[in-house]
Amino acid sequence: MQLTAEQLRSFDEQGFVFFPDCFREEEIALLRDEAERILHLDRQEIWREKTGAPRTAFAAHTFSEVFGLLARHPRLIEPLRQVFGEGVYVHQFKLNAKAAFEGEVWQWHQDYGTWARDDGMPQPRAMNIAVFLDEVMAVNGPLMLIPGSHQHGTLEAGHDKLTTSYPLWTLDKDTVTRLCAEAEAAHGTGIVAPTGKPGSVLMFHGNLVHASPPNITPYPRKIVYLTLCAVSNHITKFTRPEWIAHRDFTPIVPVADDALLSFAQAHREAAE
Amino acid sequence: MQLTAEQLRSFDEQGFVFFPDCFREEEIALLRDEAERILHLDRQEIWREKTGAPRTAFAAHTFSEVFGLLARHPRLIEPLRQVFGEGVYVHQFKLNAKAAFEGEVWQWHQDYGTWARDDGMPQPRAMNIAVFLDEVMAVNGPLMLIPGSHQHGTLEAGHDKLTTSYPLWTLDKDTVTRLCAEAEAAHGTGIVAPTGKPGSVLMFHGNLVHASPPNITPYPRKIVYLTLCAVSNHITKFTRPEWIAHRDFTPIVPVADDALLSFAQAHREAAE
Repeated sequence: MQLTAEQLRSFDEQGFVFFPDCFREEEIALLRDEAERILHLDRQEIWREKTGAPRTAFAAHTFSEVFGLLARHPRLIEPLRQVFGEGVYVHQFKLNAKAAFEGEVWQWHQDYGTWARDDGMPQPRAMNIAVFLDEVMAVNGPLMLIPGSHQHGTLEAGHDKLTTSYPLWTLDKDTVTRLCAEAEAAHGTGIVAPTGKPGSVLMFHGNLVHASPPNITPYPRKIVYLTLCAVSNHITKFTRPEWIAHRDFTPIVPVADDALLSFAQAHREAAE
Repeated sequence: MQLTAEQLRSFDEQGFVFFPDCFREEEIALLRDEAERILHLDRQEIWREKTGAPRTAFAAHTFSEVFGLLARHPRLIEPLRQVFGEGVYVHQFKLNAKAAFEGEVWQWHQDYGTWARDDGMPQPRAMNIAVFLDEVMAVNGPLMLIPGSHQHGTLEAGHDKLTTSYPLWTLDKDTVTRLCAEAEAAHGTGIVAPTGKPGSVLMFHGNLVHASPPNITPYPRKIVYLTLCAVSNHITKFTRPEWIAHRDFTPIVPVADDALLSFAQAHREAAE
């Protein structure tokens, strides 16, 4: 999968590209079943909300064969190799649950803010590629993006250790208000919240300002965030556990495009 | 303003009717300015979020001339007189702020659940008519409705005094999940979140199950909820303060349709 000239232009201007229907239902069903299994494991990589509901599973690609395939999937790897012009490695792998009724807020932040401050990543030459495992609706805590906000570099942030169970470098209200006003002027809207079916994919710049509200609905909203970093831009500070900020900088060798389908088929046959 | 046969049918089936552009910008500007003034008053009728931001102002129609006009506005009164077939009085008047960044959740509930349990209202012959003072967007904490849920009568509820600063009779997760599944089957969607410009109006049944998520955006989302009750259905228990559940059961005499415009004009002239 290569980005078109139009997609590259839109990415430069807005800071994100959305691909509806990137994965087929059969591929997503496999990932979703595996996600449910993982979120209920009792491991240090699984973080919980203050209520006890699962919030985030880190590094599932290291202990789940299915997510291992996803982390090397050419539909995710190739666009980022194209943008960075070199090989990429997995900096972080998160499965965010945003559980029905209990999924809590992620405050306004830039991901690169954390990668730079906590991990010593030299440049914002890394980004998230989000894979929707459930339908993301306007009502179940969608990701909210401020278009164009990636063009401001790394903004001043405070380390919020209180609001949720997960510490985050967050932006203040004045900054978010100003960025939304600028986005309204430049792009006609202050906030975009891409919605779509399971299998949709959202790629966004490491400096794009984003947040997501709590999920108060019965509809879970699981998203996998695969963070890929240009190999030459690997991190230099090892302050966070290895399963949060990885230290294996080997360029990813993609699997075949039908790897998830083949896996699903092999497992069906084995079960029969 | 009278409801059409189609609107009455839709109200019976879905439990709500939405009127975009019910009030003109000039009328809404008057109400919005007055709302900002009121929300910053230091009075017992103004409730605050745990953060201190304004959450709800009760009974503003009793101490604000402008909101007094709104509470007697024919575009709000007439549809309810039509539905109930008799005069109506103001049971409750709320200005919900859902402040930028700080507006907190309203959990899943039925309004009539509270009116019956706390106020001894005999039948669900009262309802809310919501007037949008700000633009209600998908992202700034819109009201979420479960279509058709008003047809289940008054559902079992628990008294939640902890989640927010305002105690509420709330429904449990299993009930909400079941109602959403039924709504999906009957109406094609489990949750509807009407969005629209300032001046839009939403009328919904006293037993319609609804909620609203926190507002994490820079966009405030003020809504006035005028609760009108059929006069013959007045409350019988006076457990809540008079400014929360009113005890004047005199039928409302509507003002002229241009009352807000005339008020705005008179005040402009006085200021010149």
